[in-house]
Amino acid sequence: MRPIKRLIQLDEAISLAIGRTRQIARTETISIEVASGRVAAEEVVSEISVPPFSRSAMDGYAVRARDTYGASKLEPKRLKRVETVYAGSVPKRVIQKGLCSEIATGAMLPRGADSVVMVEDTELDGKSVLISDSVHPGKNVSAKGEDITLGTRLVSSGELLNPSKVGALAAIGMDRIRVFSKPLVAVITTGNEIAPLGTKLKPGQVYNINTYTLGSVASQNGAEVRCLDIVSDSLSDLTHVLEKNKDCDILLFSGGSSVGERDIMLDVLEAKGEVVFHGIAVKPGKPTLFGVVGRQLVFGMPGYPTACLSNAYILLLPVLRRMARLPEAPRQTVKAKMAKRVVSTTGRTQFLTVKLENGIAHPAFKESGAITSMAFADGYVVIPADVDLLEKDEEVTVYIL
Amino acid sequence: MRPIKRLIQLDEAISLAIGRTRQIARTETISIEVASGRVAAEEVVSEISVPPFSRSAMDGYAVRARDTYGASKLEPKRLKRVETVYAGSVPKRVIQKGLCSEIATGAMLPRGADSVVMVEDTELDGKSVLISDSVHPGKNVSAKGEDITLGTRLVSSGELLNPSKVGALAAIGMDRIRVFSKPLVAVITTGNEIAPLGTKLKPGQVYNINTYTLGSVASQNGAEVRCLDIVSDSLSDLTHVLEKNKDCDILLFSGGSSVGERDIMLDVLEAKGEVVFHGIAVKPGKPTLFGVVGRQLVFGMPGYPTACLSNAYILLLPVLRRMARLPEAPRQTVKAKMAKRVVSTTGRTQFLTVKLENGIAHPAFKESGAITSMAFADGYVVIPADVDLLEKDEEVTVYIL
Repeated sequence: MRPIKRLIQLDEAISLAIGRTRQIARTETISIEVASGRVAAEEVVSEISVPPFSRSAMDGYAVRARDTYGASKLEPKRLKRVETVYAGSVPKRVIQKGLCSEIATGAMLPRGADSVVMVEDTELDGKSVLISDSVHPGKNVSAKGEDITLGTRLVSSGELLNPSKVGALAAIGMDRIRVFSKPLVAVITTGNEIAPLGTKLKPGQVYNINTYTLGSVASQNGAEVRCLDIVSDSLSDLTHVLEKNKDCDILLFSGGSSVGERDIMLDVLEAKGEVVFHGIAVKPGKPTLFGVVGRQLVFGMPGYPTACLSNAYILLLPVLRRMARLPEAPRQTVKAKMAKRVVSTTGRTQFLTVKLENGIAHPAFKESGAITSMAFADGYVVIPADVDLLEKDEEVTVYIL
Repeated sequence: MRPIKRLIQLDEAISLAIGRTRQIARTETISIEVASGRVAAEEVVSEISVPPFSRSAMDGYAVRARDTYGASKLEPKRLKRVETVYAGSVPKRVIQKGLCSEIATGAMLPRGADSVVMVEDTELDGKSVLISDSVHPGKNVSAKGEDITLGTRLVSSGELLNPSKVGALAAIGMDRIRVFSKPLVAVITTGNEIAPLGTKLKPGQVYNINTYTLGSVASQNGAEVRCLDIVSDSLSDLTHVLEKNKDCDILLFSGGSSVGERDIMLDVLEAKGEVVFHGIAVKPGKPTLFGVVGRQLVFGMPGYPTACLSNAYILLLPVLRRMARLPEAPRQTVKAKMAKRVVSTTGRTQFLTVKLENGIAHPAFKESGAITSMAFADGYVVIPADVDLLEKDEEVTVYIL
């Protein structure tokens, strides 16, 4: 049995892994219907003005501003109505001295007009309109290019798209955009004791949990996930998995990174690539292996489901998001007070799951082998390596699961 | 032209809309690979114990605890090794007095053994093992059912699934789960001036923005989105859309709810269903229509893109998430100081977009017709109806877009 030689701190593990992470360079072109949440891979510069013409911002009357000067409720100005301009139509008449056109919100401003009097400040009188307030040139008009002038950069490469940025692309008529591809992540559970879901357990077997927890975290953080079959802890099977998945950016193995006789993952990584670290000073989650094979990142996560999943949150997530060019994960946190004193181990970061009840955090951790250590918790507290104790009533930050 | 009769406050609008919202009752069965983020529609009670057998939590030696009592580094106890038990295999030998079996993490505990001595506290000596520390019964053993006892409720109906809950389902071998269906949301832009993306604009036309901003917000908040073609503001076309989309839970129209002559949406809603409100005291976004047709919710959003999108965030989002049985949206917020004084209108809630720079919030709002009022902003501040002024340097909460 080969012991883990040297534990490294979580921070060091994260920066070593980030140091080996290359941001995705592959791109793909997608419909803007599904572009929100994706990262632009092109600069978009507008080749049109938005709006493409000066238009009315109000329902009312398009006028020459100077024809309204001095107008008031007591002394309205009378203008002759020559046309009605609907949104989407093109005005036929030019507004000359003493004339006006009824105009709808969004409709093109007629030539000659420089402003719009809102309908509330007007009164129809046969073919005339009584204007009871004066406007200045430009009033209630969205000028051509006021939203987006020709040549404006709307999106930069590397920018995260949100609904309003998608809206800006739509505004210039773009129906597709080039974005960075999602990192392709293969999830592989190893171990002869692991049985596929939906089958009947044989004696000595347990069901495959890690494929689904790792896959869920990865797909919620920008990855495209490929779930592979369970493989045995043999040199040939693990090597075969590497060969068959050369197109993946990240390989997430779980199981097989502890110190058992059959701990083959380490051998595979040493033979085919490079071991970057083996063993992290975290609790749970110590027996974690990380290395590279060519341009691929390879994680050997602990087999124990809670240890595996907690490492997915604290180690995999920053690496994956970095690769995917996504900003730091927006994590929901709440402040709570510890229900009781918790002793931690100095020198190891502890991932403590808790149940929340009226602002009190009750430790929910059973053991790293028990998925209910997390499934029955509301969130977790990270106890730093240099803290050996959380006192009862001490305020902590809880990351919601 | 029909003026909006009475503005209601945003809070009232939200509670009226929520009051008409029925939570989704349709269900579907999906793979647990894609279940994280969905809402369970069944109670899951475990029909097995997890682990299904007592297993070793360590690499080491399975022993009878009493055989180790008094063991120390100076005076180790000598036990005879009779077998090696790997994970996934079934032990053949019974541990009787003076015997032990080498055992891997996760492997089934042999009969007769009640505890495991970790490998670090042992030394091999031919066919014997020297045990240098004593253990108590149960030490380093995960007992059968310790994670999940038979009959434990793992998931309740209505519970939001996350990666660890998906893991608990996997732990009992479930590969599929019944979840509530996503609300089906149809997005329809109306207006004769609106052109589809990817086409060449005719004079007087602008591109369709709202379908994509509304669709993005809806799909990021639990909806399945159906984008329909642009329809004209005619009674027959709008009625036809209603008839053809009776399977939708929400219809999101945009455009056509202002006070123009061609404001037909109101007529359609009055004829086919019920108008619940028309006009909200928000800025931008006043001309917003909400009603019901049978079991369907119908929103008539303002045509102006920023007004439309801001209403999606503050009005549609709580309604949609309620229907989808999702908890309140986890919104990312930051505290910032206002770069300058902003005057608001008493009696109207204002949605003020801002750009953030070193903790300072610079107003970014141009006009409700300009999508760049939002696309070039980092977030927004909600100024309550009873606040008429934000002072320079006043601290505000910015919701990140």
